[in-house]
Amino acid sequence: MVSETIIYPRYGETDQMGVIYHSNYFRYFEVGRTDFYKAIGFSYKVLESEGVLFPVLECGCTFVSPAHYDEEVIVRTRLESFKFARFRMHYDIVRFDDGVEKRLVSGFTEHAFANRDLKPVNIKKTHPHLYEVLKKSLEDKTHAL
Amino acid sequence: MVSETIIYPRYGETDQMGVIYHSNYFRYFEVGRTDFYKAIGFSYKVLESEGVLFPVLECGCTFVSPAHYDEEVIVRTRLESFKFARFRMHYDIVRFDDGVEKRLVSGFTEHAFANRDLKPVNIKKTHPHLYEVLKKSLEDKTHAL
Amino acid sequence: MVSETIIYPRYGETDQMGVIYHSNYFRYFEVGRTDFYKAIGFSYKVLESEGVLFPVLECGCTFVSPAHYDEEVIVRTRLESFKFARFRMHYDIVRFDDGVEKRLVSGFTEHAFANRDLKPVNIKKTHPHLYEVLKKSLEDKTHAL
Amino acid sequence: MVSETIIYPRYGETDQMGVIYHSNYFRYFEVGRTDFYKAIGFSYKVLESEGVLFPVLECGCTFVSPAHYDEEVIVRTRLESFKFARFRMHYDIVRFDDGVEKRLVSGFTEHAFANRDLKPVNIKKTHPHLYEVLKKSLEDKTHAL
Repeated sequence: MVSETIIYPRYGETDQMGVIYHSNYFRYFEVGRTDFYKAIGFSYKVLESEGVLFPVLECGCTFVSPAHYDEEVIVRTRLESFKFARFRMHYDIVRFDDGVEKRLVSGFTEHAFANRDLKPVNIKKTHPHLYEVLKKSLEDKTHAL
Repeated sequence: MVSETIIYPRYGETDQMGVIYHSNYFRYFEVGRTDFYKAIGFSYKVLESEGVLFPVLECGCTFVSPAHYDEEVIVRTRLESFKFARFRMHYDIVRFDDGVEKRLVSGFTEHAFANRDLKPVNIKKTHPHLYEVLKKSLEDKTHAL
Repeated sequence: MVSETIIYPRYGETDQMGVIYHSNYFRYFEVGRTDFYKAIGFSYKVLESEGVLFPVLECGCTFVSPAHYDEEVIVRTRLESFKFARFRMHYDIVRFDDGVEKRLVSGFTEHAFANRDLKPVNIKKTHPHLYEVLKKSLEDKTHAL
Repeated sequence: MVSETIIYPRYGETDQMGVIYHSNYFRYFEVGRTDFYKAIGFSYKVLESEGVLFPVLECGCTFVSPAHYDEEVIVRTRLESFKFARFRMHYDIVRFDDGVEKRLVSGFTEHAFANRDLKPVNIKKTHPHLYEVLKKSLEDKTHAL
């Protein structure tokens, strides 16, 4: 399962190099992640209100080509790996130049399953449905638009 | 009482005009505000952990001349007015060019006294000491550095 | 002419009060502004590449009710006033709760017409078409979605 | 050579988990980097005005323990490796709890030497002094405060 999110980079996200400031891509990843969860069937907003949090344990990004203000980009988001205590999301951000797809950045975020005190939670026990939904998305080859 | 805070604008706070993006000045005001509270004798961090919040009700800013990356600016913060349910902070951001002070922006934020549910609180009753400290800072003509 | 932009507030735009941090609304205004320009017929991105910039001279915002993470809001943007050297945009951000519209914030930004060195430009002379398009949008009562 | 930068996390950098939002640590790294360059003898601000840019090629971060609003942290910055076309900076962010140092995050950014068009530059040829200064900082074991 790969979800797609369209983003128009904002003016305030550029820097004086005339391109999107590097750390803002992690904000785009977050937007892609929120959409991915919806695409596989749950709302992180609701989940968090129930006391399950996904704090970031690790993240990384490779910058191939810069994004620019108001130039449509697409965030492709998928679950890369999944264990009891943590999972890793993968992201590609691409742009279409004259119909040709161009990769701008690729990155990942690794998350824990945690409670409100940011302590680890075994969601297979506490939220078996969530566990199944995430696991299934690893096998699902659908491309959600 | 006027407190002073030195800030070096960050690269990620610039935009493609080559200057600091306008909404970031409200973030500098926040830094000045945190320092102002310390200068008059309390910590907003501690206060909030005790359940008193100062949500922003209104804000405004006039831009005279832009700030730039890594060019030292000074935020001058003071309490402008103070009532039972709300108070207004005033800010001037200045830079020294060859020893001559130049005003870059001026602005204000108006805040409520609220509890954790963001409901109004009468701090004269609930936190008489805080009430006195704020009131006194209006009369105090000290310039804290 | 009033343009409408849908925004889903991002997680990284919340603060520890559990609501959207106040200065981020100016970033939402910017997104609304970019859309407004497109709605009346030009692209600010293109205009800037031609050397016409709209730096912010003044801005303000009144906060009525907070926005939250991933809770759809609508930015309504219109031109409020327009002179030779400057113009003022007005914004309302609203949310629908059970079909009932609720206003969250209202604000404005005032802009100059400037060149790449951020010096004033008389666009009536240099860009008569842009001048007409902006002027017409003041009279136009259309509501663009 | 390791430079140290003191940072007080800002309120607007927190998120609704009550901790600093993960992507903001890359902004703290940037502050540490600006200070590191000064510590070894040059100003990135000046360098960029001369046409040498250090765009980010890759970055990563591991989160051990969260930083909080207004809780002093220290960014320790050093050059980790250095080649003709690129170099890698390493960062540790620590806090002192009752005199005991606690590591919060570690990360890196990898940069290119580029010109204004973001094309690679061989600084050994174009800026031999800068090349020497960076090289020397790899061997220098000083700890700048």
